[in-house]
Amino acid sequence: MTDAKPHPVIHPRLEQALRMPRIAIESTQPVLEGGRFAAKATIGHPINVTSKIFSDGHDQLAATICWRTKDETTWRRARLKLIGNDSWEGQFTPTQVASHEFMIEAWWDVYETYRYELSKKHTAGVPVQLELEEGRLLLERASQRAQGETKAILEDLLHRLSAAHLDDERVSVMLASETAAAMADADPREHCSQSDVYPVEVERPLALFASWYELFPRSETDDPNRHGTFHDVHKRLPSIRDMGFDVLYFTPIHPIGRQHRKGPNNTLHAGPDDPGSPYAIGSEAGGHDAVHPELGTLDDFRALVAAAQEHGLEIALDFAIQCSQDHPWLSEHPGWFSWRPDGTIRYAENPPKKYQDIVNVDFYAEDAMPDLWIALRDVIWHWVEQGVKIFRVDNPHTKPLPFWEWMIADIRERDPDVMFLSEAFTKPAMMARLGKVGFNQSYTYFTWRNNKAELSEYLTELNEHPLRDCYRPNFFVNTPDINPFFLHDSGRAGFLIRAALATMGSGLWGMYSGFELCESAAIPGKEEYLDSEKYQIRVRDYHAPGNIVAEIAQLNRIRRQNPALQTHLGFKAYTAYNDNIFFFGKRTPDLKNFILIAVSLDPHNAQEAHFELPLWEMGLPDDGETRGEDLMNGHRWTWYGKTQFMRIEPWHLPFGIWRISSDAMDPDLK
Amino acid sequence: MTDAKPHPVIHPRLEQALRMPRIAIESTQPVLEGGRFAAKATIGHPINVTSKIFSDGHDQLAATICWRTKDETTWRRARLKLIGNDSWEGQFTPTQVASHEFMIEAWWDVYETYRYELSKKHTAGVPVQLELEEGRLLLERASQRAQGETKAILEDLLHRLSAAHLDDERVSVMLASETAAAMADADPREHCSQSDVYPVEVERPLALFASWYELFPRSETDDPNRHGTFHDVHKRLPSIRDMGFDVLYFTPIHPIGRQHRKGPNNTLHAGPDDPGSPYAIGSEAGGHDAVHPELGTLDDFRALVAAAQEHGLEIALDFAIQCSQDHPWLSEHPGWFSWRPDGTIRYAENPPKKYQDIVNVDFYAEDAMPDLWIALRDVIWHWVEQGVKIFRVDNPHTKPLPFWEWMIADIRERDPDVMFLSEAFTKPAMMARLGKVGFNQSYTYFTWRNNKAELSEYLTELNEHPLRDCYRPNFFVNTPDINPFFLHDSGRAGFLIRAALATMGSGLWGMYSGFELCESAAIPGKEEYLDSEKYQIRVRDYHAPGNIVAEIAQLNRIRRQNPALQTHLGFKAYTAYNDNIFFFGKRTPDLKNFILIAVSLDPHNAQEAHFELPLWEMGLPDDGETRGEDLMNGHRWTWYGKTQFMRIEPWHLPFGIWRISSDAMDPDLK
Repeated sequence: MTDAKPHPVIHPRLEQALRMPRIAIESTQPVLEGGRFAAKATIGHPINVTSKIFSDGHDQLAATICWRTKDETTWRRARLKLIGNDSWEGQFTPTQVASHEFMIEAWWDVYETYRYELSKKHTAGVPVQLELEEGRLLLERASQRAQGETKAILEDLLHRLSAAHLDDERVSVMLASETAAAMADADPREHCSQSDVYPVEVERPLALFASWYELFPRSETDDPNRHGTFHDVHKRLPSIRDMGFDVLYFTPIHPIGRQHRKGPNNTLHAGPDDPGSPYAIGSEAGGHDAVHPELGTLDDFRALVAAAQEHGLEIALDFAIQCSQDHPWLSEHPGWFSWRPDGTIRYAENPPKKYQDIVNVDFYAEDAMPDLWIALRDVIWHWVEQGVKIFRVDNPHTKPLPFWEWMIADIRERDPDVMFLSEAFTKPAMMARLGKVGFNQSYTYFTWRNNKAELSEYLTELNEHPLRDCYRPNFFVNTPDINPFFLHDSGRAGFLIRAALATMGSGLWGMYSGFELCESAAIPGKEEYLDSEKYQIRVRDYHAPGNIVAEIAQLNRIRRQNPALQTHLGFKAYTAYNDNIFFFGKRTPDLKNFILIAVSLDPHNAQEAHFELPLWEMGLPDDGETRGEDLMNGHRWTWYGKTQFMRIEPWHLPFGIWRISSDAMDPDLK
Repeated sequence: MTDAKPHPVIHPRLEQALRMPRIAIESTQPVLEGGRFAAKATIGHPINVTSKIFSDGHDQLAATICWRTKDETTWRRARLKLIGNDSWEGQFTPTQVASHEFMIEAWWDVYETYRYELSKKHTAGVPVQLELEEGRLLLERASQRAQGETKAILEDLLHRLSAAHLDDERVSVMLASETAAAMADADPREHCSQSDVYPVEVERPLALFASWYELFPRSETDDPNRHGTFHDVHKRLPSIRDMGFDVLYFTPIHPIGRQHRKGPNNTLHAGPDDPGSPYAIGSEAGGHDAVHPELGTLDDFRALVAAAQEHGLEIALDFAIQCSQDHPWLSEHPGWFSWRPDGTIRYAENPPKKYQDIVNVDFYAEDAMPDLWIALRDVIWHWVEQGVKIFRVDNPHTKPLPFWEWMIADIRERDPDVMFLSEAFTKPAMMARLGKVGFNQSYTYFTWRNNKAELSEYLTELNEHPLRDCYRPNFFVNTPDINPFFLHDSGRAGFLIRAALATMGSGLWGMYSGFELCESAAIPGKEEYLDSEKYQIRVRDYHAPGNIVAEIAQLNRIRRQNPALQTHLGFKAYTAYNDNIFFFGKRTPDLKNFILIAVSLDPHNAQEAHFELPLWEMGLPDDGETRGEDLMNGHRWTWYGKTQFMRIEPWHLPFGIWRISSDAMDPDLK
């Protein structure tokens, strides 16, 4: 303001308006609820940032992503590009497993605006003397601001301008890319505006790409009357690893209560030798931080963790916040439970399921705040100290969201490699919210998506905001709780169908033991296994004929060899003219790895279809030539044109997995 | 916490987690960018609030909207209802034109949860003694908390419980609606959680429902060589009002510059008698707060405002922030402009349009902050003091967003009846943003939406978030700047088509004089009027044959009589099996007013179609019986069944407007 104009008092709102960002930065992604929750990302994977950025007037803008870990003080920068209609896009690739944050900075690109207008006028033959003088002044002011090499370049350019004899020469100097670069370096970033700062949680690769194998350690025995032990698990490690699994997940390994112990098939009265459900945690032998004596000792467990690691397997434990009536906490911390007028505690329910053998803690009981919260956190930390970094959490949707948000952040601050898989089967909003509060992976509705429309819609939804940014789907083909209806009478082909859908659909998939043997005996009319392993020891012959061990191993091998399959992102449904054939693609953003998957959803009959190769995505014409490779058997061929034909015979293999490529691919897309 | 447990230090993040809301309240609407901007609402119109509300566990929840004006300290409340899948919905109806705010409060509905479980168990024949004792304790604790009548009721209920001999009697007491009501009154609202507080701007009815008529006052003359005056406008008021208009909008009325004055048809050199463009504001006679001497005096203007008001018309002025080179500001405030090295100011452009007769101010020039901002605000306030409450703002997208946000809020805080119409024709994000920063109405893309798919898509988008909440579309059928291609050779029928689409499509529509005479002479190949009134005085015979004055009056009359037509909201496209017939409906949320509109988009040929009456929305079966009334001519009939037939002859009337009703309508929907 000049001295001549006295403005002793400016209204605070006007003062604020004068300082407000001139540039609007809107609809930035990935952002969850305005930044209330961190978007999910994975180390080494580019994070795609998009935003609507615009300002009044017609000047050109420039914009960058500023990003850093939460512990860093300086921002790293990555340029955003205008992709049209005020939409901008850019990427940054985090290199640390840590909490990150980013924001967008945008400013008026004065010199680019000038260059554009000068070039347009010059091309149109309009006199540009005045524009050249304006440009010279821009350079002069920039050279005054600049330092070092940039200053030298700008001074040299100014020199060349004044030495030039013709306007054409001066125009050339002004439009030179060297001038543009120097002016960008010295850019005062007029009207520089910043977005809010948004959190991004960067996790380790296993958060996005992992194959889980679930087993009951006690069933690792050859005699149903002999309780399996940690020692017994050792000899399974090579075969599980050979099938291509990364994570070996155990149902709870803690002492099992006696009171109200369940008998076989969920009966209410156990015989004296019935082992009970491992989810009824706690006995006189201890609670959540103890090991069930029949499985071995804590030392045995640590030895198993180490052995698994040598085989390339990480052990995941089950975190089930519930207590048998014999859990030490009931007597030591009665104030952590809600007692009824008759001196009992209500048993747990997850309607319509009833768990007469367990009771729940009350997170908001007076005595439980904060003791119980801390105790539960300490249970996790105890197992982290034994070498466990992955926890599958039982029914997290029945425990308070603020507890998870705090506990997961607290643990991951100490060790960012620790991960939690949410076993919530409930309504969509809660499923997503658990991802938002910090669960790294989530169980899904995949198990109940069987037809083409359902599968296509669900996979699409998982690829879109907000789920894309808060929810990593772990496609379990079965669990001890879910013996899917589809498998009851599908035979071996049905198991192959579901394995192909899970392994190709998501970077994360899981299998509960017995699946590879095509076990499907159910309690009639229910998705419960008959003689469920939850209530009894089950002995299995893992070499039984008809098993699908080789196919699972091959599916996992294909996943390891193809980056497009190491995430649920990059999915797209394509056209096959048969509703029984689900035909889709997975591709890396750079198109270097492009996999086509055709799964017949009919385990009984052959299915045929004409289908479309997505040549348009590869920048190829409809008559383009592509190479195909069958990743299950190595067969190779050439496809000519867009429309092709397939026939799938479920008695051979109910699916095809093909890598498509082309030498003629549009180089801009490569 | 009990004394026995020393917790001298709880980590602040845990402390915070313990206090965090247990209930998630997500995706609340109407909310713009997390509450950064106020959603738009209109006095007397219910505001529909929706939200996802959920918590851990299986307890039932209850929720209310809390709302108030920004000046009030206590909240008013309106209950939300669960509509399924964690979605809740409720309404509140503001009764003041003022800035409002609302939030959502949700809590565990302990007694409803209890009632539900008791009822289920009792119905199933399960013993409920323990549940009854739990219920008694709930009542006892509630009666201790309660006061007055509620306390008395609860004490009486407790008395009845203890006097009862049978469990069945006690169950009846527990399940009685009287008990539920008393328990709701005494509800301690366990785990009560609050959303953020979100702003809502409540505006006067004319913000949502108004018909605008635009004219150049100087053309109100019977001789092109005699400049029309404010006095001349008086005699037009009755006929404009008779056509059903509410707002009479004048192009700028300020002194017009001499330098670079434009001649007829935008030529660069005006003759001595050419009046120039009224958008070249400012001469030695004054600037934005002055009146063009040839129109009359400020007193004349005030008299016209008063006369218009007597005729039920509000005057709207044009606010065009630009200056002719003769504007007093150039000499008085040179620091408000950006000067080029040769001592000139760059003339204005809105590519591809060039405005050689005007220059723009520089909002961020050192001297302009804040003097220019205040001066512009004071221009508006000056005209408010002359009785003007409505401003049409010229090209707001070329002026800074922070200026608008501050200026509009500042003016509306002094007088909340003042409204601003944004004349921005630019990209979608900026169009919407201008609504967010405070513009009450906006020009739209309507003028360029001609075919069925375009119209349907655009009207749908305007009905959806975020536009629904930030953007009130004013459908202008033409403007001095836009002589739409469609009208160039459509004949009279084309004008009726566009008038029907505008009047039925939005509560807000506008017409620039000459439209009612079907004027369409254009500069060849351009959407510019030939002999544009922007550069010359145009004399018209408003009784010329072939005019559509009667039809416009009838369309406006239908709008006044049918609430469904007084907003752009409530639109839905329906099926007519002919792409030349755009068939849609407008209905009030309570379904009491339901209008069907069929517009042939073909001004030349008759068009026929089978079409579907939306019986399903009225809760009627496909063979339901409905009454129809043609609102253009009063004809009435009965429709039998869903599929009907229409024929539209553009030489009679290119559209039909029918009110549909039924006695048999599902009473729940009424």
